[in-house]
Amino acid sequence: MIGHGSSNLVNPHVSVDCVLFGYDGEDLKILLVNQIDKLDLQHVLNKKLPGSLIYEDEDLDESASRVLYELTGLTKINLIQFRAFGSKDRTRNSKDTLWLERFHKLSTSIDRIVTIAYMAMVKIDHKLSHLTSQYKACWLPIKEVGDLAFDHNQIILYAISYMQHYVENDPIEFFDLLPAKFTALQLRHLYEVIYNKEFDVRNFHKKIAMMNYIIPLEEYEKGVAHRAARYYKFNRKIYNKQIHKII
Amino acid sequence: MIGHGSSNLVNPHVSVDCVLFGYDGEDLKILLVNQIDKLDLQHVLNKKLPGSLIYEDEDLDESASRVLYELTGLTKINLIQFRAFGSKDRTRNSKDTLWLERFHKLSTSIDRIVTIAYMAMVKIDHKLSHLTSQYKACWLPIKEVGDLAFDHNQIILYAISYMQHYVENDPIEFFDLLPAKFTALQLRHLYEVIYNKEFDVRNFHKKIAMMNYIIPLEEYEKGVAHRAARYYKFNRKIYNKQIHKII
Repeated sequence: MIGHGSSNLVNPHVSVDCVLFGYDGEDLKILLVNQIDKLDLQHVLNKKLPGSLIYEDEDLDESASRVLYELTGLTKINLIQFRAFGSKDRTRNSKDTLWLERFHKLSTSIDRIVTIAYMAMVKIDHKLSHLTSQYKACWLPIKEVGDLAFDHNQIILYAISYMQHYVENDPIEFFDLLPAKFTALQLRHLYEVIYNKEFDVRNFHKKIAMMNYIIPLEEYEKGVAHRAARYYKFNRKIYNKQIHKII
Repeated sequence: MIGHGSSNLVNPHVSVDCVLFGYDGEDLKILLVNQIDKLDLQHVLNKKLPGSLIYEDEDLDESASRVLYELTGLTKINLIQFRAFGSKDRTRNSKDTLWLERFHKLSTSIDRIVTIAYMAMVKIDHKLSHLTSQYKACWLPIKEVGDLAFDHNQIILYAISYMQHYVENDPIEFFDLLPAKFTALQLRHLYEVIYNKEFDVRNFHKKIAMMNYIIPLEEYEKGVAHRAARYYKFNRKIYNKQIHKII
């Protein structure tokens, strides 16, 4: 019953976590940092998403940008809040909470952390491949991620399903991941990573041919050992006209 | 810099808030409750969204369902988490924090509350029009909402823009708001409320005619004083075929 005494209420810590998906033309990667033990820099801990506890004077969006910058050096990323994770199981592993208490030099123990997760989809260009080293920030192919701290593997799974939603309902953001001109192979590989399944090559080409907003160009790859593949382009205008909208 | 002492870190309270949009065939409404002062039931306070602080033993989604049930009596609503609100300005009005401290009989004062907001779009049918009276739960037309407690007006604005996103990119959920058979007037009124602007009647009819997934029926309103309007139906299959998808 609502309104009973305060004994069952909880004042959790609140954090932000950033899931950055980056495509470098070959692999779909994810931005990770290391859990650093400041008292023992040799002590190897897990990798994790760039994230941290919020400060009392900052809003959630501000906090996400600050934390991403402090841990990886990246700025001006269009972070989209996509989901809060607040299960009490998030802090099940005492290794993670102990690390966090040491990291922030907390005098009290951490019980529960509600985290607000942000995501972004970016092309890993020259600028975004320069990461700061203090927390060993790196882009790792999604398939090589392994076990992460806290529930960060689960957060990534949610972010991927969120990305699937984009692909299906709002592909404009999704096509921003790709270079302006891309091959059918690049597109198929992206789909395969995002949906974690293989697509039949011939069917995939047939489907592309039906999507009249994916325009085949009269340009082909250059200087490749294999047969040069055709380039395609996403046409935003045609896509927007596909479904007649009232707005 | 990350990892300084804990002085700037914050342990906010965490709450959930539910934005339920309901359509009764005439108005788009929103579900509200009253701030009840338990020590003085005559003391009239603001209306607010159904929401409350989370308990230590429950996850966020569980908490949202529990709170919605306890404040309004509604169950089995498909609540979608859409955004966390965590600005320190949320608790700017001491009337709200004082009310909350009394409501929960808290011994410490409330400083900051991060709230996780959920939304749902429902048809207000017989079942959903039965609300419990303890917190004066009611469906109020969006235009009559007035000033709410905390930042709840702002949360509703965000929820409306989220609903616009549904209308534009994933209208299947949106058409669930309408009766199985609806008139062009009903559809237009819904759009007008969601976009807060008027649509020209003739243009609106032209646009409907172009949306081949909105099927005109050979059925008309019965027993109305004005000229009986035609009924339309949303065809999910045709809609899904509109854009050829790879998945």
